[in-house]
Amino acid sequence: MNIQSTFAKRLGNVETSAIRELFKLLAKPGIISFAGGFPDASMFDVDGIKAATDKALGDTAGAVLQYGATEGYNPLRENLSKHMATKGVTVSPEGLIITTGSQQALDLIGKTMIDEGDNVIVEAPTFLATIQCFRLYGANVIGAPIDEGGVRVDKLEELIAKHKPKLVYLIPSFGNPSGALVPQDRRKRILELAVKYKTLIVEDDPYGELYFDASPNACAPRSLLSMASDVPGSLDWLAFAGSFSKVMSPGLRVGWLIAPPELLAKATMCKQFSDAHTSNLSQAIAANYLASGAMPTSMDKVRKVYAARAKTMAECLKVEFGNAIRFTAPQGGMFFWANLTGAVTDARRQSTDVAALAKAAITNNVAFVPGAPFFAHDADMTALRLSFATANEDLIREGVARLGQAFRSL
Amino acid sequence: MNIQSTFAKRLGNVETSAIRELFKLLAKPGIISFAGGFPDASMFDVDGIKAATDKALGDTAGAVLQYGATEGYNPLRENLSKHMATKGVTVSPEGLIITTGSQQALDLIGKTMIDEGDNVIVEAPTFLATIQCFRLYGANVIGAPIDEGGVRVDKLEELIAKHKPKLVYLIPSFGNPSGALVPQDRRKRILELAVKYKTLIVEDDPYGELYFDASPNACAPRSLLSMASDVPGSLDWLAFAGSFSKVMSPGLRVGWLIAPPELLAKATMCKQFSDAHTSNLSQAIAANYLASGAMPTSMDKVRKVYAARAKTMAECLKVEFGNAIRFTAPQGGMFFWANLTGAVTDARRQSTDVAALAKAAITNNVAFVPGAPFFAHDADMTALRLSFATANEDLIREGVARLGQAFRSL
Repeated sequence: MNIQSTFAKRLGNVETSAIRELFKLLAKPGIISFAGGFPDASMFDVDGIKAATDKALGDTAGAVLQYGATEGYNPLRENLSKHMATKGVTVSPEGLIITTGSQQALDLIGKTMIDEGDNVIVEAPTFLATIQCFRLYGANVIGAPIDEGGVRVDKLEELIAKHKPKLVYLIPSFGNPSGALVPQDRRKRILELAVKYKTLIVEDDPYGELYFDASPNACAPRSLLSMASDVPGSLDWLAFAGSFSKVMSPGLRVGWLIAPPELLAKATMCKQFSDAHTSNLSQAIAANYLASGAMPTSMDKVRKVYAARAKTMAECLKVEFGNAIRFTAPQGGMFFWANLTGAVTDARRQSTDVAALAKAAITNNVAFVPGAPFFAHDADMTALRLSFATANEDLIREGVARLGQAFRSL
Repeated sequence: MNIQSTFAKRLGNVETSAIRELFKLLAKPGIISFAGGFPDASMFDVDGIKAATDKALGDTAGAVLQYGATEGYNPLRENLSKHMATKGVTVSPEGLIITTGSQQALDLIGKTMIDEGDNVIVEAPTFLATIQCFRLYGANVIGAPIDEGGVRVDKLEELIAKHKPKLVYLIPSFGNPSGALVPQDRRKRILELAVKYKTLIVEDDPYGELYFDASPNACAPRSLLSMASDVPGSLDWLAFAGSFSKVMSPGLRVGWLIAPPELLAKATMCKQFSDAHTSNLSQAIAANYLASGAMPTSMDKVRKVYAARAKTMAECLKVEFGNAIRFTAPQGGMFFWANLTGAVTDARRQSTDVAALAKAAITNNVAFVPGAPFFAHDADMTALRLSFATANEDLIREGVARLGQAFRSL
């Protein structure tokens, strides 16, 4: 008998991801990576964060370095309440809790909601770590098909009616990996389905602020949460996970969870026994940064840069791949989701072998992530995800050129 | 149907603790609290932590604010490897992972090890949040009796043989709430039991550095982990949770887990889906603070102050309660564990009603925690826990005097 034989059965539900193995290859010098899910560190507002940190370790040092409340640091909850108001959401400071990144919000929802064998519906494809997180609680994860407008609500209703899921997890704005933006009519329908079937909808919104529309009155897409007041009863069946990871700093690990009061209370209890509370210093920095008013300016800058990178990537992909690739250019977020089409060119059918392309790409010093791991089941083997967030426009041009070479070498 | 009816069954295993309700009363102005489990914030080395923070947000700002590895920030893992070496433990940087406080180390052990219905043995009494944490994973928690030397190894062996537990959780050095220091011969026996019964021992060590012995060669008690090299095979069945919460700052939420490689790998996977990684800023601060060499001086100061407070509390309890109370003066840590004896004085039997004393104490502007919630079952209703960490000596004198008045009013 060895220690492995004593591990919990839930570990059998998940595997170490293929992506994690891929990431080990990215340490190769000179590689241009479109593989990550990271924001561009060169755009972090280091000076603004430093100022927020100095303030946190000034008058409030004693409180910041001491144990804090599981629910979160009150000045951050207050600032987040105001921040959410600018996004059309009315939530009191007591109506949200701070989590150690939005990943923990998902984990707490899993712990609070999911019993062994429960059905859970996600987009197909969706964020890999969510699939794994819910499977560790014993969920049977079912994928709902998407199109260029994100999750198909007709199919979603069929799946809800059939599988009676414990919850439905969605990234409606610039989803990972899909990049898709769910239109307003579908959003309304999703909220109606929550009420009709009494099924919790979990809205994960790490990318909502990363919209590319630069018109004068442009604003973030309306979240499901901000639309819930239009659909009576839907607030009782809606949870929202927010994150500063794409818009301030992921390294601080600050996210938040808004949920019906009973669910929020139980998630708080689960958090008490998960990590007691989130780093008070990180929370105080986020609070001070929000209060400083620097956020809108930082966001404008990030949006402009990402928009230009996305535009460049779209152009380059068209030049290099022509009709051998199909994608919808994203209106925000960090990702292109594309398919190899197998179109016939020069009298031969072009490759749809994404795994072979991934290998050839690494050899040619460029990386992306195959799409298959983002599916809970029935993976689309012709899909791939490309991030345009971390490489500048010159590197995007060079990287996509390398990718084109790799493709033509197949 | 409402959302409560859809919660996971595991929530039925735990209750919101009575202690949490008590803590709400502590906001009363003028109250002297012996109730908390907090270190004294006035002893945090704010200047040292500020310097470590400035360094973290200097050259390393980009890395610190970006996503990091689930296993932890490498400079911290390296510094912790050296730190553990000063405590007689040989562990490589890869042999430990960073956790969001040691609470998360316990949660990851629960997630990795515990199936519904598994038996788990803890000290009776033990840290309340551990009982709840393991119960959320479905553990049947069994208490092993203690005496002034901590867990009784004869009884522990009987319980292991009978219940075949998935793991045994212990706080061998200045336990919470017991304050007890397990002697070396018992420690060795515990390691032998791990090997004999192939049962994982989880050593939680938040208080080991808080020893009061001021003699020139005084050092921290030898951890089970540091003794494991003396007991062949025991390293295969031993996990260790370390914490900076009592010795640097709890607000940063930095702990660490050392465990057999297979267990550490699975705990890392579970952490990936729990919170991705611990705040990089907190980790970099801890790394820089360790590297600065300031730790030993800070620790000396804290030990001296806590030792004096413990001495004062012991004297005052004797004066106020005489033979109505029984305790072993702690040699370290933060807590007195005491029993009301029901001794006969002035021809009447004195009260053993701790719940009544707790109420009378609050009325008299002093607080402590009844001992009952620290038992997984068969609570000792005459026990109470008093923390001497946060009140200075004058406040301890005044607080224990108030407690004596409250006792005599029963």
